[in-house]
Amino acid sequence: MRDFLPEDVRRREYVIGIIKRVYERYGFEPLETPAVENLETLLGKYGDEGNQLIFKILKRGEHEKTGEADLALRYDLTVPLARVVAQHQAKLPRLFKRYQIQPVWRADRPARGRFREFYQCDVDSLGSTSPTIEAELCAAVADVLTELGFDEFVIRINHRQLLTALLEVSGVDVSLHSGVLIVLDKLDKMGPESVRAELSSRGVSDSVCDSLLKTFAGRGRHLPSFSDDVLQQFFDTFAEDPKALAALRNLKTIKELVGGTSADKRVTLDVSLARGLSYYTGAIMEINVADLAGSLGGGGRYDNLIGMFSGQDIPASGFSLGLERILVVMTERGMFPPTLATTPADVMLATFDAAAAGDAMRVADILRASGLRVLVYPDADRIGKQIKYADGRGIPFVALLGGDEIKAGTVTVKNLAAQTQQTYPQSAAGAAIREALTPRG
Amino acid sequence: MRDFLPEDVRRREYVIGIIKRVYERYGFEPLETPAVENLETLLGKYGDEGNQLIFKILKRGEHEKTGEADLALRYDLTVPLARVVAQHQAKLPRLFKRYQIQPVWRADRPARGRFREFYQCDVDSLGSTSPTIEAELCAAVADVLTELGFDEFVIRINHRQLLTALLEVSGVDVSLHSGVLIVLDKLDKMGPESVRAELSSRGVSDSVCDSLLKTFAGRGRHLPSFSDDVLQQFFDTFAEDPKALAALRNLKTIKELVGGTSADKRVTLDVSLARGLSYYTGAIMEINVADLAGSLGGGGRYDNLIGMFSGQDIPASGFSLGLERILVVMTERGMFPPTLATTPADVMLATFDAAAAGDAMRVADILRASGLRVLVYPDADRIGKQIKYADGRGIPFVALLGGDEIKAGTVTVKNLAAQTQQTYPQSAAGAAIREALTPRG
Repeated sequence: MRDFLPEDVRRREYVIGIIKRVYERYGFEPLETPAVENLETLLGKYGDEGNQLIFKILKRGEHEKTGEADLALRYDLTVPLARVVAQHQAKLPRLFKRYQIQPVWRADRPARGRFREFYQCDVDSLGSTSPTIEAELCAAVADVLTELGFDEFVIRINHRQLLTALLEVSGVDVSLHSGVLIVLDKLDKMGPESVRAELSSRGVSDSVCDSLLKTFAGRGRHLPSFSDDVLQQFFDTFAEDPKALAALRNLKTIKELVGGTSADKRVTLDVSLARGLSYYTGAIMEINVADLAGSLGGGGRYDNLIGMFSGQDIPASGFSLGLERILVVMTERGMFPPTLATTPADVMLATFDAAAAGDAMRVADILRASGLRVLVYPDADRIGKQIKYADGRGIPFVALLGGDEIKAGTVTVKNLAAQTQQTYPQSAAGAAIREALTPRG
Repeated sequence: MRDFLPEDVRRREYVIGIIKRVYERYGFEPLETPAVENLETLLGKYGDEGNQLIFKILKRGEHEKTGEADLALRYDLTVPLARVVAQHQAKLPRLFKRYQIQPVWRADRPARGRFREFYQCDVDSLGSTSPTIEAELCAAVADVLTELGFDEFVIRINHRQLLTALLEVSGVDVSLHSGVLIVLDKLDKMGPESVRAELSSRGVSDSVCDSLLKTFAGRGRHLPSFSDDVLQQFFDTFAEDPKALAALRNLKTIKELVGGTSADKRVTLDVSLARGLSYYTGAIMEINVADLAGSLGGGGRYDNLIGMFSGQDIPASGFSLGLERILVVMTERGMFPPTLATTPADVMLATFDAAAAGDAMRVADILRASGLRVLVYPDADRIGKQIKYADGRGIPFVALLGGDEIKAGTVTVKNLAAQTQQTYPQSAAGAAIREALTPRG
């Protein structure tokens, strides 16, 4: 788990700020849940592997010595959402659109670029089965990536029922579907030979493997677009399968609906897309950026999960962005704006002697009132040492307030980069510094 | 532990936003640490009672069955700060001013208004012993409360060394000082008789109790101001005690330094102020709001704590605001601005039929581009039902896009409160809605 030093926090908040703003624009509302859930709430929801990765909290007080756990750290944001819906049903609207940006914890073995505490940015619409929901999720996510500065990205979409039909056509036994999809989801990472080996170990015959790899390995992100030709081909193939036809129609509608939005031309049908989570029931989505292996996020429709706690079926569809991944890529590619603060202050007030400290505080207050971030150097060290501190911290201006300045009601402002200095009336210095800070068009 | 539904989150973020903005203006930088610390890091730092209240995390995998814990949830933000300073020393500046706003967890018995997960808002300056630091903490906190809308508040200050001198004069044995201060800190809550009983049980004699209660119970928040008279009286009393004199001089300087800031006239000497934490070494502070028992925050100088992990003495002083308390008071007193969003959207686009959904998406996009928060009603329910949904959620405008509007490139905007409607060109509707949303001067 990591500490986030000031520069890290600023970058994280910049990205989170954009994600929030975009989601709010789409009518999604913020939700936050506690870090700690009842252990019971989480157990059994993430498969055997998941159960092992949950951080469990020891009972307190006299029960501590039993060595038993009753609480656990949040493992994702979806199960807490389902719990919230059951618990606060009366307070929540019939159509509930929420976003949630909070850390989750998984006891993975620490590895490069993987952390045991990491943030998820989830956005979900509850209460409607309309394809408008998926189209809007695509549009919102496209807006987020665009505002973050990503130029080339594509949203691949597929449908769980179309996958089912494809598996059936390939001859995969229904009992193996869920496991086979988890393996096929790894095709990008593992390559066809490893996937073939893992499929075999799950009991898939050689001929079925051939068929699957022909269907899935041949496509992937190379599929040029969501063309009518490609789609028609599938409509023909599954003309006799009502579920597959409904899935195809759903995908076609989503594609049409995004036409009027920022996700237009971003959305691509990819029948090889097979999100690993078993709870999806309809359209599934994943977002990929040019020249980057893996995805920046994904999601889909899951109509049977939310009702798990309330016992009432509530259709749902959502998308999760990987904040940590986005931050890594944006850092590597230098995508943060130069205006993002990397310094503790715009100006530092030097302190000549203890007697002048009150005047320094007062002038600092005047400069703050003009909107500047002002650091008062607290000790009457040598002025050279103080200026060196400002320089080392990247603070561009140092304000000097000596006896003459105090008497005259002025302040001398040193521009450290330009190595110039100028004396202003105390009331005018703030505006002058702001002017100098504004990047030239 | 609580879920925060949208309205809660918005209020929390409003308050946190102001706190951050003010602290940034003073040159404090953001720091975030993981929720989970090594158990060793926390144990023994919060006294016996604290040890009991730490949430401990069970070892994972094969070690789980030992029933042992190796990790724990963050209990406060001060110990993690000390750990960060030791761990990242080379990356941190000599003078390090940081704020940190994150949840902490304590296994308290749940009680009214107390939660096991709650946020702390800490601001600390590391690396200087100058009284400028305390003056700046007072000014920053005064700015925060003022911007939140609190009119009447006072920052009480005292000094640990002055307290020591007062206890000595009252005849309290040095070995009892720390415990006696914890009891005296509760004078407001418990009243003098309970305090007398608890002091007796700690071995304080009756005559010493009399003397203590005379000194401490007679003053409190009723002390009118930090007057020169009051101060001079103490200078006279402790004329022979160099430590007490240094403390008095320190308090006098802090008072003078805040003169030029927003904390002017807010700061009051209160010799009965006795913060419970034993690690304070210098000035201590607490902020009180009129007509409210207890404080909204407090802090002080603690020059020996940060070095605990690094082995190197680093002077420090800080202030912690109680976010949960502030939120309760602001809610009770109706202090949130009316402009704070309480609805999911500014306008809802109704959906006439599935065929018009694409146009609704497109027009929603146009409205969003004009800065509005737009919710697209996803299902082609009866229009009456859709409008009822918007009304129930407090969405002030509904945009209707029927066949005529689509053909004409217009949109009809219904003002639900005024029960009026008007048709605009699609490109002009956003500006019209924004205009109508702007509160009249």
